[in-house]
Amino acid sequence: MIGKMHRLSKIFQPSLVIPKSAVIKNQDTTSKSQRLMLDQGLIRQAGNGTFYILPLLQRSLQKAVALVDFQMQQHVGAEKLTLPTLISSNLWRKSGRLELADAELMKTIDRHGKTLILGPTHEESITTLIAAISPVSYRQFPLRLYQISTKFRDEMKPRFGLMRAKEFLMKDLYTFDIDLKEAHKTYELINDTYRQLLEVIGVPYVKVRGDTGLMGGSTSHEYHFLSEVGEDQLMHCSTCGLSYNLEVLSEQKKPCERCNNKNFSKQTGIEVAHAFILEDKYSKALGARFLDQTGKPGVLQMGCYGIGITRLIAASIEVQSSETDIRWPLAIAPFKVCVIPPKEGSKEETVAGAWAEKLLHEVCKIPGLESDVLVDDRNSMTIGRRLMEAKKTGYPIVIVVGTKAASESNELFEIYNQLQETQIVLGFNETLLEIDRICHNRKKMK
Amino acid sequence: MIGKMHRLSKIFQPSLVIPKSAVIKNQDTTSKSQRLMLDQGLIRQAGNGTFYILPLLQRSLQKAVALVDFQMQQHVGAEKLTLPTLISSNLWRKSGRLELADAELMKTIDRHGKTLILGPTHEESITTLIAAISPVSYRQFPLRLYQISTKFRDEMKPRFGLMRAKEFLMKDLYTFDIDLKEAHKTYELINDTYRQLLEVIGVPYVKVRGDTGLMGGSTSHEYHFLSEVGEDQLMHCSTCGLSYNLEVLSEQKKPCERCNNKNFSKQTGIEVAHAFILEDKYSKALGARFLDQTGKPGVLQMGCYGIGITRLIAASIEVQSSETDIRWPLAIAPFKVCVIPPKEGSKEETVAGAWAEKLLHEVCKIPGLESDVLVDDRNSMTIGRRLMEAKKTGYPIVIVVGTKAASESNELFEIYNQLQETQIVLGFNETLLEIDRICHNRKKMK
Repeated sequence: MIGKMHRLSKIFQPSLVIPKSAVIKNQDTTSKSQRLMLDQGLIRQAGNGTFYILPLLQRSLQKAVALVDFQMQQHVGAEKLTLPTLISSNLWRKSGRLELADAELMKTIDRHGKTLILGPTHEESITTLIAAISPVSYRQFPLRLYQISTKFRDEMKPRFGLMRAKEFLMKDLYTFDIDLKEAHKTYELINDTYRQLLEVIGVPYVKVRGDTGLMGGSTSHEYHFLSEVGEDQLMHCSTCGLSYNLEVLSEQKKPCERCNNKNFSKQTGIEVAHAFILEDKYSKALGARFLDQTGKPGVLQMGCYGIGITRLIAASIEVQSSETDIRWPLAIAPFKVCVIPPKEGSKEETVAGAWAEKLLHEVCKIPGLESDVLVDDRNSMTIGRRLMEAKKTGYPIVIVVGTKAASESNELFEIYNQLQETQIVLGFNETLLEIDRICHNRKKMK
Repeated sequence: MIGKMHRLSKIFQPSLVIPKSAVIKNQDTTSKSQRLMLDQGLIRQAGNGTFYILPLLQRSLQKAVALVDFQMQQHVGAEKLTLPTLISSNLWRKSGRLELADAELMKTIDRHGKTLILGPTHEESITTLIAAISPVSYRQFPLRLYQISTKFRDEMKPRFGLMRAKEFLMKDLYTFDIDLKEAHKTYELINDTYRQLLEVIGVPYVKVRGDTGLMGGSTSHEYHFLSEVGEDQLMHCSTCGLSYNLEVLSEQKKPCERCNNKNFSKQTGIEVAHAFILEDKYSKALGARFLDQTGKPGVLQMGCYGIGITRLIAASIEVQSSETDIRWPLAIAPFKVCVIPPKEGSKEETVAGAWAEKLLHEVCKIPGLESDVLVDDRNSMTIGRRLMEAKKTGYPIVIVVGTKAASESNELFEIYNQLQETQIVLGFNETLLEIDRICHNRKKMK
């Protein structure tokens, strides 16, 4: 629906051109992904820990949001809503978190002198909502409510671009069950959904036992992408393979809870998602209750489940890219296909240009690609220059329609599969089949 | 993609049940739409001027966002991005708005003592972004960038629910042109797009000359829904029909600029959208420049164009609803169709229940309705009770499958068209045709 074909010349993508004589500033708080995203015009820095998300990255963001929406609604049966960003500090006082979290809370005082927190997470808010209509009949449960919204944290030292910023886009799901057994069933379902979601993204991840920390509750798991810029220390049991966040073990140098082994291999990870069973910490403090079958009131058992959407994208780029070229998971690339037509005024312009038009027309008809094809129509630039840029920006599939497509007897198209880093030359129909195959993760035909 | 059919029993919609003995609080800061939205479980109040947006209303919100995205991308050729919520107060000092807007600005101070504004609008931010890459070649223009994000305003007296809240969802589009003539062309295009968008919404509106006020610039138009709770005084020229915001005329009791008449009829309106030509107010102060064809630098001419998304929805409900029943524009109703199957244990349950299933199956196949059909499966409630609730919540089309559908020879379905407030009884195939007709705004067949 949103536009059949997109022209790169019309996209606002201010690439960073670093003059050769430039003095490079101290880079210790930047990461590869941050540098690549700045260089390729995906983000611009606005302030310390705040960023402009530019149109290409905005597309990735919306794809990630759509993926998460789908998983939440179809697999978890969760309903989407919006909780206010501004939260009364009184609510956090009731839960006991106001002082504990103080250093990282951003606050504002309104004209009536009331202190409001810019929500970093919303357990208090959602529990208050349920408490306001409590007690609810047991028939209404399980209840699963989520939002995708901007969250705020007053980081001591914002760093690594979107990975640790003052404001970030996050999905937070809250669940309510009538007892702990049901809460654990919900927990399994959502962990299974996270597995499915991360498999669709396709970046290798580890699931580790996490510390419940400030969140409270009993059980927690985290999902990490392994990376040297990761800020979490992970411990992988060399006997049974169970993994832990170091925080869980370090308290008393605990052994592996499954096999009692004490030998661990160390890894560092970027946390992209987490799951907590909160038990009744918030529901008790704030009065979220239900009525059981006999009409007796009980306290609800809660869970909370976050996915850092902006962080997930940045971490994917961090893990998959080279020092010079961005590589995206296919599912969240800004565009799946980039077509490069011949240079203006070249001798192949007429013939290859016509083939490029024909190809674009057909590629847009491949199911799922209606709105996912970009043409680099900056035709005053050579094919080589545009190909180099397409490799840097990292569109999963780049098709060059150049001299080989101007052959009279046998027009050929160059296909760069940047997911596999392979390159192949094919005829018109085979090119369409190959694009379709790559986009739908099908095996190569023999 | 998101679920073929939705069950009302699974939707979190905590309706407000007011005990008969309740003392009704002072209602002077509430409006009809706010009361109806609270009563029907679309919103809940969180604090003074902050609200929970519950699942049914969240659906409307997403439909409105999709409509605006479509108009911005397809008709305006605008690109979507995200500007940070937290804005350095220095930026607003440069534009001269920091002191002027102070009373309504919400601010936070980070741990390093830096004052950050919670953006109510983003002229300074977008202009700084363009300035950072200035001067840009004239070839890159017109440039049209927009976002849809939560904005903040420290209202003296938040009121009328989502119509004047401390935080609200808003679309803000910013345009950059190389001269004023081009900026006016852009202005015409976007005003035309607003006309199209408001025609799709279908609520009658008036376009009036607006005051440029705090925004600055030269030309401004506002779009209003007429309503007695509207906070803007509008003046309608009784000779030529041109309309004004009173602010424009009152300075010196000016006559109509087109016909010089001084007779106006008064109206009150809710502003749902506005358009401004900003000229070079921000681009000059913040240094957003371009290079013309001769390589000479020039200052960019800007425009800004807002639509209050949450306000648009609330205002639509305000204008179209009765005192007891919500009425939605078809395009942004949470669900277009609600089907009510027979009551559990009734004598028509088996036969009519089978017809309800068959109907649901077929209605979901009507193009555009795949994910827009709700079944009120709270079958322990009578049809009458559920019909009354469906009328209150205001789904545009309600289909009752009751005793008339259990007739052996001639099964019939009751169709309540809540857009027209009509009611008709039809056979199976005719019911499907009628639903399709209403949803696609086609004329009735003879």
